[in-house]
Amino acid sequence: MSEAESTPPVVPGDDARHPLAMETLVALCASRGFVFPSSEIYGGIAGFWDYGPLGVELKNNLKAVWWQRMVRERDDVVGIDSAIICHPRTWEASGHVDNFSDPMVDCRRCKKRFRADQLDDAGPCLDETGKKGEHDYTEARDFNLMLSTSIGASVDTTSEAYLRPETCQPIFNDFKRVREAARQKLPFGIAQIGKAFRNEITPRNFTFRSREFEQAEMEFFCHPSEHTEWFEHWREQRHRFHLDLGFDPNHVRLRPHAADELAHYAKAAEDVEFLFPFGWQEIEGVHDRGQWDLSRHSEYSGKEQSVTDEETKERFVPHVIETSVGVDRTALALLVNAYDEEELEGGESRTVMRFHPAIAPIKVAVLPLSKKLAESAHALKKDLQRHFNTAYDHAGNIGRRYRRQDEVGTPFCVTIDFETADDGKVTVRHRDSMDQDRVPLEGVVAFLRDRLETAL
Amino acid sequence: MSEAESTPPVVPGDDARHPLAMETLVALCASRGFVFPSSEIYGGIAGFWDYGPLGVELKNNLKAVWWQRMVRERDDVVGIDSAIICHPRTWEASGHVDNFSDPMVDCRRCKKRFRADQLDDAGPCLDETGKKGEHDYTEARDFNLMLSTSIGASVDTTSEAYLRPETCQPIFNDFKRVREAARQKLPFGIAQIGKAFRNEITPRNFTFRSREFEQAEMEFFCHPSEHTEWFEHWREQRHRFHLDLGFDPNHVRLRPHAADELAHYAKAAEDVEFLFPFGWQEIEGVHDRGQWDLSRHSEYSGKEQSVTDEETKERFVPHVIETSVGVDRTALALLVNAYDEEELEGGESRTVMRFHPAIAPIKVAVLPLSKKLAESAHALKKDLQRHFNTAYDHAGNIGRRYRRQDEVGTPFCVTIDFETADDGKVTVRHRDSMDQDRVPLEGVVAFLRDRLETAL
Repeated sequence: MSEAESTPPVVPGDDARHPLAMETLVALCASRGFVFPSSEIYGGIAGFWDYGPLGVELKNNLKAVWWQRMVRERDDVVGIDSAIICHPRTWEASGHVDNFSDPMVDCRRCKKRFRADQLDDAGPCLDETGKKGEHDYTEARDFNLMLSTSIGASVDTTSEAYLRPETCQPIFNDFKRVREAARQKLPFGIAQIGKAFRNEITPRNFTFRSREFEQAEMEFFCHPSEHTEWFEHWREQRHRFHLDLGFDPNHVRLRPHAADELAHYAKAAEDVEFLFPFGWQEIEGVHDRGQWDLSRHSEYSGKEQSVTDEETKERFVPHVIETSVGVDRTALALLVNAYDEEELEGGESRTVMRFHPAIAPIKVAVLPLSKKLAESAHALKKDLQRHFNTAYDHAGNIGRRYRRQDEVGTPFCVTIDFETADDGKVTVRHRDSMDQDRVPLEGVVAFLRDRLETAL
Repeated sequence: MSEAESTPPVVPGDDARHPLAMETLVALCASRGFVFPSSEIYGGIAGFWDYGPLGVELKNNLKAVWWQRMVRERDDVVGIDSAIICHPRTWEASGHVDNFSDPMVDCRRCKKRFRADQLDDAGPCLDETGKKGEHDYTEARDFNLMLSTSIGASVDTTSEAYLRPETCQPIFNDFKRVREAARQKLPFGIAQIGKAFRNEITPRNFTFRSREFEQAEMEFFCHPSEHTEWFEHWREQRHRFHLDLGFDPNHVRLRPHAADELAHYAKAAEDVEFLFPFGWQEIEGVHDRGQWDLSRHSEYSGKEQSVTDEETKERFVPHVIETSVGVDRTALALLVNAYDEEELEGGESRTVMRFHPAIAPIKVAVLPLSKKLAESAHALKKDLQRHFNTAYDHAGNIGRRYRRQDEVGTPFCVTIDFETADDGKVTVRHRDSMDQDRVPLEGVVAFLRDRLETAL
């Protein structure tokens, strides 16, 4: 049992804020190539972000551990990868065409559009000449948050389609096909990772609320009589997942939705929240969606989505428990959680990203102490990169190179020095403790494997 | 040196066809859960496909080996993951807004739209009542193949944006940021894998020509004087990659573009083609794009994209060599290439997908010979799934279970029998040779690792 489990965490209240300044993190992300605005040379595009060389590895690692835990280590969950653009009837069945909207008002004077429930934040009304005045609002109208496009080339068949606003609906579309192809019986789940799009009115908080984002969702299909126990199972599993990722247990909490927060079809919902610098915010939701989805798709497609229990011959529409991770939000939480500034002996300090080794973008850096050692250093790099994402750095003094790796969270640095030729050993330096081990060259892969392949 | 390299392949001519019937493959893909139409319960949506439980693993394996080879095993290439929706000026700079179009004509009588250069294939002209007549064509007009959408909530800032028609342009947008963040000097490359969208007039040939597809692209930036040698380097590297994936060397060829096929800015281009059942078709392109892209983005963004050589102080716009894999096309080629029907002794036959082990969706299946052995079989599965994607099957006789794994290309099956309890050994059965090895339980992970982690 880990310390996190034996000591009950002291979770701060609703008004708490993570102490890290967002500007500090945003600056590090841009300068080191984690995340930066999309199309920066054109002034950016609000709500869209690009992941750089380190960010793509971080995000891929997060997706890989989710897939490993949710799909590969379970006999009762299988994965899919569906198209972003589905048949438009999908979004009629799901209710998105009718209901996925915010009420908006336009100002006739300044021509700006605002959320009807946030007019207090509307700011000054400036006309074309910049003259200040009073807003002159229209009636509220619903503004659908789905992004739409047109598909097809023939005039008579061109049709409006939507970029999926969530990855779960195509899972429902594919429910029967996947169940049969994978020879699964209830209870079982279907998981997928992919992009989704929402035309957020006010994208904000760095990558937290963006218009293009990635979800990692799993829909678990069970008999209606079992829905409570499966909801309990999944909320517990998903909470544990985030603790296993290395989040400070004081900065993660489960928050059940109040009755008036629930979607009309939902039986229960619970958020996994992380304490960001902008407060407690959802990084994952666990939802009891009842029989809503498959019932609606049965109705709209005309294809019966119920199943028959082989033993009792009972025919029923499966009940669905959903787990839904915001991948970009969780990646942002991992960045916030990892950031640390540490005072060192002699008055120096270092910035160190304390990622879980499974999440760290670079696992090991090879640092030759002199350019004369380049040959054996390159040979070692070549050996290591078959197994781990490996960096190579020969520029600057060794202390500076350690700092560079600390700042991007590399758990291990291997230095090759002039003694290596004599004793066949290298120095492995640990990111967090800064301790050093002397390890035989031929044992480095095994040494690192033991420490990097620890079960998450 | 492998046999493929020592024996010059006999590559069939332009009119050749792969002997596999597409219907056979399409049926296998649907029934076993590799690939099937998106939104099938709504009648599908032309040009969109979903990958099922086996397809997603196949495609992820292909992407992983590309990333390993192109990014992790090179010191001079870094990865990114950019947004699908870029600033719309990107597509003005790239020329897509003006030029990424096919000339189309409408028929005034039957209201259908056709490619102006394919009117011979137009078929009969049927009016609303179904009466046959002559087509009455309009003048040809350009039909842009980009999918567009609207972003933003304020009336005055809502703007048209496009789903990227290729993944390379955001790489050019990010060139300076990434070069600085990754501390790279020329020559170096930036790679990314992601979705792209084109409103193809006639999606066809299963997943080969679809409207939503995935690309794995790499843009390599070099001094203009070095472009020929880097083009040679990359065409050779990329050809080798496909041979290493296990493609029949007689079914892969390099085809240089003729001068009149080249894009106006291109200096040279060469396709890697695979022999599909519908003929030789491109699965990857290697392109010498000259200085076109960065020059245009300098012009349209007003941000200078040239670089300075630190030694000579020469300032120049980098020259670009691109390698561009169609991920879905290559996955389809891998499926075609793997398919085999084999006569067995006793008049039986089996379907076997002969995937390279690195590509196979499932690496190993655990098959207990009796339900009484479930406990030790589950323990072994739990052990193996930490390292490999592992299946478990206890249903039906062992021959039938072997056939099921052959049909999805699982390279190894491990059977646990009643002797296992006595001698602590299991039987490992090889997919291709059907040979069997008796391996100690505690040695199975190492046995498989040796055979599955072979360098690609």
